[in-house]
Amino acid sequence: MPHFINDRDQLVPEAIDGLLRSAGGRLARLDGYPHVKVVVRSDWDRSKVALISGGGSGHEPAHAGFVGPGMLTAAVCGEVFASPSAEAVLAGILAVTGDAGCLLIVKNYTGDRLNFGLAAERARALGRRVAMVVVDDDIALPDLAQPRGLAGTLFVHKIAGALAEAGGDLAAVTAAAERVIAGVVSIGMSLDTCTVPGNPKETRIATGRAELGLGIHGEPGVEQVDFDGAHSAMAMVVDKLADRIGSGQHVALVNNLGGAMPLEMSVLTETLCRSRIADRIGWLIGPAPMMTSLDMHGFSVSLLPVAAGETDALQTAVPLAAWPGCFAVATPEVIAMPDGMTATTFVPSANAAAAALITDACKALIAAEADLNALDAKSGDGDTGSTVATAAHAMIGALDRLPQDDTAQLLRAMGEQLSQTMGGSSGVLLAIFFSAAGDAAGGGADLTGALHAGLARISEVGGAGPGDRTLIDALLPALEALPDGLPAAAAAARAGANRTGGITRAGAGRASYVSADSLRGHNDPGAEAVARLYEHLARA
Amino acid sequence: MPHFINDRDQLVPEAIDGLLRSAGGRLARLDGYPHVKVVVRSDWDRSKVALISGGGSGHEPAHAGFVGPGMLTAAVCGEVFASPSAEAVLAGILAVTGDAGCLLIVKNYTGDRLNFGLAAERARALGRRVAMVVVDDDIALPDLAQPRGLAGTLFVHKIAGALAEAGGDLAAVTAAAERVIAGVVSIGMSLDTCTVPGNPKETRIATGRAELGLGIHGEPGVEQVDFDGAHSAMAMVVDKLADRIGSGQHVALVNNLGGAMPLEMSVLTETLCRSRIADRIGWLIGPAPMMTSLDMHGFSVSLLPVAAGETDALQTAVPLAAWPGCFAVATPEVIAMPDGMTATTFVPSANAAAAALITDACKALIAAEADLNALDAKSGDGDTGSTVATAAHAMIGALDRLPQDDTAQLLRAMGEQLSQTMGGSSGVLLAIFFSAAGDAAGGGADLTGALHAGLARISEVGGAGPGDRTLIDALLPALEALPDGLPAAAAAARAGANRTGGITRAGAGRASYVSADSLRGHNDPGAEAVARLYEHLARA
Repeated sequence: MPHFINDRDQLVPEAIDGLLRSAGGRLARLDGYPHVKVVVRSDWDRSKVALISGGGSGHEPAHAGFVGPGMLTAAVCGEVFASPSAEAVLAGILAVTGDAGCLLIVKNYTGDRLNFGLAAERARALGRRVAMVVVDDDIALPDLAQPRGLAGTLFVHKIAGALAEAGGDLAAVTAAAERVIAGVVSIGMSLDTCTVPGNPKETRIATGRAELGLGIHGEPGVEQVDFDGAHSAMAMVVDKLADRIGSGQHVALVNNLGGAMPLEMSVLTETLCRSRIADRIGWLIGPAPMMTSLDMHGFSVSLLPVAAGETDALQTAVPLAAWPGCFAVATPEVIAMPDGMTATTFVPSANAAAAALITDACKALIAAEADLNALDAKSGDGDTGSTVATAAHAMIGALDRLPQDDTAQLLRAMGEQLSQTMGGSSGVLLAIFFSAAGDAAGGGADLTGALHAGLARISEVGGAGPGDRTLIDALLPALEALPDGLPAAAAAARAGANRTGGITRAGAGRASYVSADSLRGHNDPGAEAVARLYEHLARA
Repeated sequence: MPHFINDRDQLVPEAIDGLLRSAGGRLARLDGYPHVKVVVRSDWDRSKVALISGGGSGHEPAHAGFVGPGMLTAAVCGEVFASPSAEAVLAGILAVTGDAGCLLIVKNYTGDRLNFGLAAERARALGRRVAMVVVDDDIALPDLAQPRGLAGTLFVHKIAGALAEAGGDLAAVTAAAERVIAGVVSIGMSLDTCTVPGNPKETRIATGRAELGLGIHGEPGVEQVDFDGAHSAMAMVVDKLADRIGSGQHVALVNNLGGAMPLEMSVLTETLCRSRIADRIGWLIGPAPMMTSLDMHGFSVSLLPVAAGETDALQTAVPLAAWPGCFAVATPEVIAMPDGMTATTFVPSANAAAAALITDACKALIAAEADLNALDAKSGDGDTGSTVATAAHAMIGALDRLPQDDTAQLLRAMGEQLSQTMGGSSGVLLAIFFSAAGDAAGGGADLTGALHAGLARISEVGGAGPGDRTLIDALLPALEALPDGLPAAAAAARAGANRTGGITRAGAGRASYVSADSLRGHNDPGAEAVARLYEHLARA
């Protein structure tokens, strides 16, 4: 499975440099490539407690994406899914730790514990004040000996980060981190495995199955379950969480494991907010990718009980695009539909000349049904003639309800009628044509001027102009010739329609996807319809 | 291909409701489900020009994710990849348009143009001031008749949004949008097709191939090309862009089409910033998913020439998590590695008793190599004995370089020696053990106390306690019995080691993944090593 990477050995360094490029100078890195990959705040003055996290890469935006004021001071990045070395962690500690000391926030994986632990030991031997906490929010099994660190780690970053930024000392920051760790629970579900760049994809999860209680390093979930949509998926996740939380209010962090679409994440959030623990969720963080597992098509939900003051720390603004914010759960506000949406009511009136003209025109189009269908079959599904004929029949049937004696209103009413009976793009275009023509007539334009206004508007909206093999190629010359009489207009329309048979690259509409060979020698059906119409009117 | 959705007909409404839940009350929707899906600012007072965008869903966070102060006023959402109806657009217009009028920002797709165009017509007939712009930033082919609207649309949202928020009138906002549209160019590349929820996945793109010049609705790219990594992929994209941009500075918007991992997007950004047009890119937006195509594994780059004042509009802060900000491109700042990283230099000294004790202990471990390997083979890869023996040989060889006559320094030096020669988790744990013990000895502890301190630290870092089937099960009782003499300690270590043979669920380390049957009756090799060590020392 290919990925947008270069040399695999350079993947993480290149990604870190790309992050630095796009961070506007907020971030820097240590000069330790390739072994030491440490991202630090470029504005850090060591005056406060430093927060250092990290671990294997592949969990972006964690952890480097959360380096910034109010969250992490430094992120120590390993290779994909591999702990950074103790030396790299030590470099990170020494680079950012001042007299106030530092807190290492470590996810509960053996490699991370050991390497961060050894680095802490060495930094202490060098006189630094170093505390370390281990996040183990995974509740995949009730009696896991070593629960893993999952997206609940973000709560630690944010709450300890807010406290450190506010000037809290190392003991207070560490105590806050430990309170969070004691309370937070997380569980995830995935429909597919993740793909490690450069490795073949594992096809462990069959279609129709899901893994529940998974880690973030591609290891199998604790159980495979049947997958039957978002409701039952979230219900399984909620069941696990419900067993482990108290009755108070919680903050829910909804994490995209990487490959779920935003639409899915929003559906899952809505589903969570309608679940049986909905009344215990007062705040939401996300949905967003925060602690991913490469491209894993899954999600996790983390819950933190709300203790006094912690929502404040979660809601403190940070200038980090990766942090989605923490908001009180909102009941979707529903606003009444605006007034004036109903179709305009037209007052019927009689005008024999207008009625005759419309009837004539409609009959011309009805007569052309078979020919237009045949032309359309060259570049489409062969139904233009029938679509037009159906609308023409309906128009004749509606004549008595039209305001025949008011040109502006009549044009508008014809537009509305066509939009209801014709359907598809053509119906919309003709509705726009007659509506704009009606507006122009209402503004004082004569019929030719009104039709020109309609044409200009559909050209603007539809994006087609002369030569694009559309009805415009017949209608525009016809309107231009109309001051010289109907026969001149009909001749111009016919010439225009016939020219479309020589246009082998359509500039708009469906025919623009059709090959030149298929178009050559066949008039555009829309232009042909216009020519037939004018020819009929000229004869009448 | 399954997705985290419920009823497909409810996909978009549920996703919109999920968005509203997590937006902290900033957003509302019209009461028009299922047909009318319009998201609006809940704080909107109609006093300024309204910006309305939308189109088919499947491009999240566009467009509803960009509804908020300084960007859109309303988003009209269609079904996945389907234009909303003219009625839905009209509802959006009427809901948010006051005397200042509104601007419709439409991507250049026939359905969107027609439905937004018809809605505009109707709103005008109802007395609203409505302007409409069509974004056509696609440069997949030099002579496209109808270039599509792609992620460049975000520039319009942000720049027109900033101007409208600042009180610009409809003509000024529209003119700004048109200037952006005239200048912006975009092109995308993908390694795979997107998956429409509920539809089978199309497998049009073979592994090793990519599509260049693609749209955002799953339609094929203009050309298929060979894919050979991020450098050549970005070079093809840059070639297309270079043909279409001037010599001045540009803002680059790096868009994730949905399925590219953050690591890939950062690598692509770095690659773009090293490309042949790098000197023409002064600002970056992203990388981030902004205008996605469901889960498409691809990216797009949009470039906007920098005209006076437009970077200000792009950089104005907006309270929208989906907008990643616009930053001047930063040259990655590289900070020198911290001092003090080199290993401590120990001053060698002689102490016959200490040297004898260390040599004896090492010999005991060397003698146990085969037995320890055999035990390890029950739960691991059978190399514990050899790993330990190698380190023991190296320790004997290093004896002359150790500070034998300074207990604290000696322990620290042994820790450092082991971390270099032993490798793996065991090496790190023993390094932590001896380092912490050395610190305790340096602080005044006697040898037993120092070893207790080391044990406490590895228990903390490694996460294992008594009963977890580790060397702690032998070492802790041995240390506790040590005040009664070496024979007592040896007996306690042996008893402890033998108890591990009855522990069939390991609490830490690799053996925690091994079945009870594989563990039953076999001592933990680490505990056995400790017992062998103490037994040997007691006999000596």
